[in-house]
Amino acid sequence: FPSRLPNVGTTIFTVMSALAAKTGAVNLGQGFPDFDCDAALLDAVSKAMRDGHNQYAPMAGAQPLRHAISKKIAACYGRTYDPDTEITVTAGATEALTNAILCSVSPGDEVIVLEPCYDSYVPAIELAGGTAVTVSLNVPEYSIPFDKLAAAIGPRTRLLIINTPHNPTGRILHGDDMRRLAEMLRGTDVLVLSDEVYEHMVFDGVAHESVARHPELAARSFVVSSFGKTYHTTGWKIGYVAAPAPLSAELRKVHQFNTFSVNTPMQIGLAQHLGNPAPYRDLPAFYARKRDHFRTGLAASRFKLLPCEGTYFQCVDYSAISSMPEAEFAQWLTTEHGVAAIPVSAFYREPRDSGIVRFCFAKREETLDAAIAKLVRL
Amino acid sequence: FPSRLPNVGTTIFTVMSALAAKTGAVNLGQGFPDFDCDAALLDAVSKAMRDGHNQYAPMAGAQPLRHAISKKIAACYGRTYDPDTEITVTAGATEALTNAILCSVSPGDEVIVLEPCYDSYVPAIELAGGTAVTVSLNVPEYSIPFDKLAAAIGPRTRLLIINTPHNPTGRILHGDDMRRLAEMLRGTDVLVLSDEVYEHMVFDGVAHESVARHPELAARSFVVSSFGKTYHTTGWKIGYVAAPAPLSAELRKVHQFNTFSVNTPMQIGLAQHLGNPAPYRDLPAFYARKRDHFRTGLAASRFKLLPCEGTYFQCVDYSAISSMPEAEFAQWLTTEHGVAAIPVSAFYREPRDSGIVRFCFAKREETLDAAIAKLVRL
Ligand SMILES: CSCCC(=O)C(=O)O
Ligand SMILES: CSCCC(=O)C(=O)O
Repeated sequence: FPSRLPNVGTTIFTVMSALAAKTGAVNLGQGFPDFDCDAALLDAVSKAMRDGHNQYAPMAGAQPLRHAISKKIAACYGRTYDPDTEITVTAGATEALTNAILCSVSPGDEVIVLEPCYDSYVPAIELAGGTAVTVSLNVPEYSIPFDKLAAAIGPRTRLLIINTPHNPTGRILHGDDMRRLAEMLRGTDVLVLSDEVYEHMVFDGVAHESVARHPELAARSFVVSSFGKTYHTTGWKIGYVAAPAPLSAELRKVHQFNTFSVNTPMQIGLAQHLGNPAPYRDLPAFYARKRDHFRTGLAASRFKLLPCEGTYFQCVDYSAISSMPEAEFAQWLTTEHGVAAIPVSAFYREPRDSGIVRFCFAKREETLDAAIAKLVRL
Repeated sequence: FPSRLPNVGTTIFTVMSALAAKTGAVNLGQGFPDFDCDAALLDAVSKAMRDGHNQYAPMAGAQPLRHAISKKIAACYGRTYDPDTEITVTAGATEALTNAILCSVSPGDEVIVLEPCYDSYVPAIELAGGTAVTVSLNVPEYSIPFDKLAAAIGPRTRLLIINTPHNPTGRILHGDDMRRLAEMLRGTDVLVLSDEVYEHMVFDGVAHESVARHPELAARSFVVSSFGKTYHTTGWKIGYVAAPAPLSAELRKVHQFNTFSVNTPMQIGLAQHLGNPAPYRDLPAFYARKRDHFRTGLAASRFKLLPCEGTYFQCVDYSAISSMPEAEFAQWLTTEHGVAAIPVSAFYREPRDSGIVRFCFAKREETLDAAIAKLVRL
């Protein structure tokens, strides 16, 4: 039978993690921490299981978690989403993104994605029967080319996907970007899907510019986040979508038939944990230290460090070391030099080479040191 | 923006559970147990969390769980699925079903569903851009009308969805049904999606006829099951698909962009538990006792009990009590008589009334007794 996703292979994250495991390389590829999460959070989940929270959660999410999310968004960004009609808990941010795309994009619709971008966006658009219209961020500063973006918006544009802090580049959108986006979309019926899973990893005292801070944008937006990045639990797969009630209603129709509901004891455990702002308040400093440690270590190398304003990713330009294409370089770095990285080209629909790879610094200091020791030798 | 699922409202399960909660009715509607799961299973998950299994599982599922599933299927049904290429862990059976449909059905394709059927099948087909062709089971025996089914298969038929043990009717497919299905599909390229989540609830000494027992069918089938029903953990949302490698490869493409991966500590905990056959070996007797208790209690009522060969659902004909349409009767039963049920009409695309509602008997004896006391009064 004909493939629905003929251009899709195994994700780069799976490929590089497998290669790292096979070769014993330090895995700075796929983004996940190699340290533990808060024991209190584990205890909260264990208690939820023992307390009998093991049957179906409500379709839209466990009520205490929806309320806790709403409160947290209000505290962080000043917008109140109604927990009953505007917050939906999903099986990770990936399901959140897919649901938002599947519920809003009809065959023939166009969706604008800013490349490089997370590798699930385009396949989800294709599954919906839509057409991805790609606009490349300016390299190497990875800023939005507003003129090109404006030109890409047409009568068939249904959705614009943005992502801040930005994976893979570590750049963030600023207040001005948000205002220009709001202005550009004024008078159109283009929706926005804002992927903000790294919301609590913005460094150097800068505040995360959530779409939720910008009423005009928020009114047309699905805002997606998750707990995996914030609580060091990428494997729990609990995410959510905050969106105005009419958007949430359509999103829930897809969610209810896609996964129906999300792991109950994890939701209950997280709901209890969310009341404490310390974990996400302390996260910028926690990750800034790791970023700085990694950057300081690499300063002695021939890699050129690109700016890292947010996320747990550090991009580097390796053109002083090699002229290999990125995919080949990442492979070679893993097998020959014992450090796995992700080629940024994997975040483009048509692989494009800028001589840049991405390292994940969400690692213990000794892991980062082991990688640094290998990388400075190149 | 135009809805992708204009015909979809809130699922009947959510509606009836909410109504039961609001009115304090005994909830025999939505299918879930009101008793606890095995403490050893909870301990296994808690231990997995403490052991640090909190980051992304492999996209296709945690390796120990895929191996344990493969072994279990081989032990139960005699077919060996390669854990590396033929087993995929999903966010519950609902995601499994959706992935199987999204990966195989292209716009314009037809999918045959046997009504009554679980309410996610048709919306998932619509999301894929396919057309659901419904064939009604013979009422009230709910057997397959093979002549009508054969007539429904045409050049655009991509997929046939079957479900045994059958929700909502509690009927099962027998070896003969499977052989006739295999024969009917011979020479076509129609795929089969077999929903077998109630596989371990088949009563009276009869064996579950998994598609996995029938090589000719299995070669063209996605076999879907989950752990929620078997382990009394409907809220954990861990399911899987077993399918030949080429089908699994396409399914994984969708899974990797739909949810990417599934809750890691739950997978690791379940993997350890799966080696013990006692829970699923003992399940038929466990649920047969509940079925018999419920049926014996209702024998004194004016409800007519339909046969229940499998699942944890008991269908009853209420025509001696009322001539209301099913949806209205279920509502009335909940609000006026304190017992929530599910109208079987909700499992038809065009609601059709046969004067039958479904009760879930996965409940403690005192819950069943409370419901019986109310139901015999009618
Ligand atoms: C879901 S695996 C990919 C993890 C991730 O977000 C990344 O490495 O970019
Ligand atoms: C996912 S809620 C529905 C549970 C169920 O399978 C049923 O009640 O039929």
